[in-house]
Amino acid sequence: MTNGKEDKEITIYDIAKRLKISPATVSRALQDHPRISAKTKKKIFELADEVGYRRNHFAGNLRSQKTQTIGVIVPRLNSHFMSSVIAGIELMANEHGYSLLISQSSESARKEADSAEAMFNSRVDGLMVSLAYDTNTLDHFDKFFRKKTPVIFFDRVKPHRSATSILIDNYQAAYDATKHLIEQHCKKIVHITAPPMQNVYKDRLAGYRSALEDAKIKFREENVIVTNLTQEAGYESAEKILKMKPLPDGIFVANDSCAIGCMIALKEKGIRIPEQIAFVGFNNDPMSTVIEPKLTTIAYSGFEMGEVAGRLLVNHLNSTSQINNTTTIILRSDLIVRQSSLKSPAGH
Amino acid sequence: MTNGKEDKEITIYDIAKRLKISPATVSRALQDHPRISAKTKKKIFELADEVGYRRNHFAGNLRSQKTQTIGVIVPRLNSHFMSSVIAGIELMANEHGYSLLISQSSESARKEADSAEAMFNSRVDGLMVSLAYDTNTLDHFDKFFRKKTPVIFFDRVKPHRSATSILIDNYQAAYDATKHLIEQHCKKIVHITAPPMQNVYKDRLAGYRSALEDAKIKFREENVIVTNLTQEAGYESAEKILKMKPLPDGIFVANDSCAIGCMIALKEKGIRIPEQIAFVGFNNDPMSTVIEPKLTTIAYSGFEMGEVAGRLLVNHLNSTSQINNTTTIILRSDLIVRQSSLKSPAGH
Repeated sequence: MTNGKEDKEITIYDIAKRLKISPATVSRALQDHPRISAKTKKKIFELADEVGYRRNHFAGNLRSQKTQTIGVIVPRLNSHFMSSVIAGIELMANEHGYSLLISQSSESARKEADSAEAMFNSRVDGLMVSLAYDTNTLDHFDKFFRKKTPVIFFDRVKPHRSATSILIDNYQAAYDATKHLIEQHCKKIVHITAPPMQNVYKDRLAGYRSALEDAKIKFREENVIVTNLTQEAGYESAEKILKMKPLPDGIFVANDSCAIGCMIALKEKGIRIPEQIAFVGFNNDPMSTVIEPKLTTIAYSGFEMGEVAGRLLVNHLNSTSQINNTTTIILRSDLIVRQSSLKSPAGH
Repeated sequence: MTNGKEDKEITIYDIAKRLKISPATVSRALQDHPRISAKTKKKIFELADEVGYRRNHFAGNLRSQKTQTIGVIVPRLNSHFMSSVIAGIELMANEHGYSLLISQSSESARKEADSAEAMFNSRVDGLMVSLAYDTNTLDHFDKFFRKKTPVIFFDRVKPHRSATSILIDNYQAAYDATKHLIEQHCKKIVHITAPPMQNVYKDRLAGYRSALEDAKIKFREENVIVTNLTQEAGYESAEKILKMKPLPDGIFVANDSCAIGCMIALKEKGIRIPEQIAFVGFNNDPMSTVIEPKLTTIAYSGFEMGEVAGRLLVNHLNSTSQINNTTTIILRSDLIVRQSSLKSPAGH
């Protein structure tokens, strides 16, 4: 670069001036217009490359209409589950020559819309999204739907006729977790969860409720504690729990870090786990085997979810298979029983 | 859209055809060329918006040369430290109307280069990078330097005359950690770390070594275990440690998750911590207060590091202040003493 304007975006006018040809010719060449000769195109491409004209303007990419990037929008990056999902997506993406651009919504629908906008402007070939707590419309993805850019929702999903969803059966998982506590002779089971606007929390609450009702235990609104599910929220929930009369004898928490925060706080107050209060978490976070007693939890593989989503998207982009007719994919989850919930020695 | 080609990238030719004007006029209008009338520009912008022509082509952005996005490349997303840094960057970025695009290198220099390429093609206004284990050249950032796009390295850094680095004094932190173990009467101190290609591990190793030498304890190569610092690597390191004769009486690990993996494995073999082996980790991960005994560690705020980096970049982009003359910013770190290292009841 010798023009002393290195901090300015290079335009077709700069290239035209340097090559003493018309801007229209440069523009056409960069769009691989058939009227421009191969020799001229070569000259223009070489200079464009040299001066740092952006690759997504190149004919090669315009021809295929692809940037070889996949956008991923997640609520938060600070969980083992999310980083596992991303690792799974990335494995599939990289195998097929795609890079990931990732963004977090920080659980805000407004920021999710900003992220979607940034992804759209980056011309991602496809988009994967796990929705924020308070997202209640998918309007901010309309641009993608209109352009037929494939969109896949995972874990936290909303149905849309132009998108595919990948998730676990949250209702069943929560039902199993609660049933397990009932089998451990728990009679008063508290559920700690997030606001039930998203499918995952709504479905887990419904599963908890059904398991109680099937066991003829009355569901009580006051036994549901709604938090943001952080470890700190777990400490705070412990204070609420200590004020309950009688104390609950079982707690099912919608994620592990919140469960662990709650366990630590209760242990500090002398509560014995599982003897006085049995615990079940959700996610099988690595921390669940660090806490003592080890935490019973619902395991489902974020990595596998990412792999499935990634494979689906890549195959669609490479036209190996189309996702248009696939609306929902349900993945497996398992209850992993550890010491935190075993009141009876035999396990049942 | 009515042209039935919704899955194709919209070009200036499509817009020209619809408006029955020349592609050159459309191109110029979109680049805010002074020769095109405001009325024509308005007509073109409106259609461009309607058909989903990409925003980064718009005159408004071309004029300011900005996309209002900041790129962040990190080695891995699966640590509390990294998600805290990102949260800090994001706070500053969002306050000033920037979105983040994030990418992970998965500790591979090659993937880091791919990420840099994707970021460049997304036209980020600035870039923040924490380097992969095996990155030994900064050539893949040359495009940014040439274009004068600001680049900030954080935590894992390499000096470059066109970039600013933000980090802690890893040498001093490791010196303090090791000195603390020596004060606890440890005589054989093992150091578990990553390959010393990156500043953080090289400097921590040097700090460990100096502290030993200042206490007249001979540095021995065989007391340094090189791993990838995952929790699993901690389990494996425990096996090596159990074969050492005599057993070490202190272990300083370059991150907390590896320290915790090692502690869990040693506890399972009946080793008493800290009585037989005292432990010090690094990072003050939330897990460090979940493990029993709680882990002594080096605390430094990822959030603050992100905030400082974010503020620096945003102020530079908004021309409030220039970073060109700032080469390095050193942030504070602290030794937090917990039960895992306290052999003597008084603490010393």
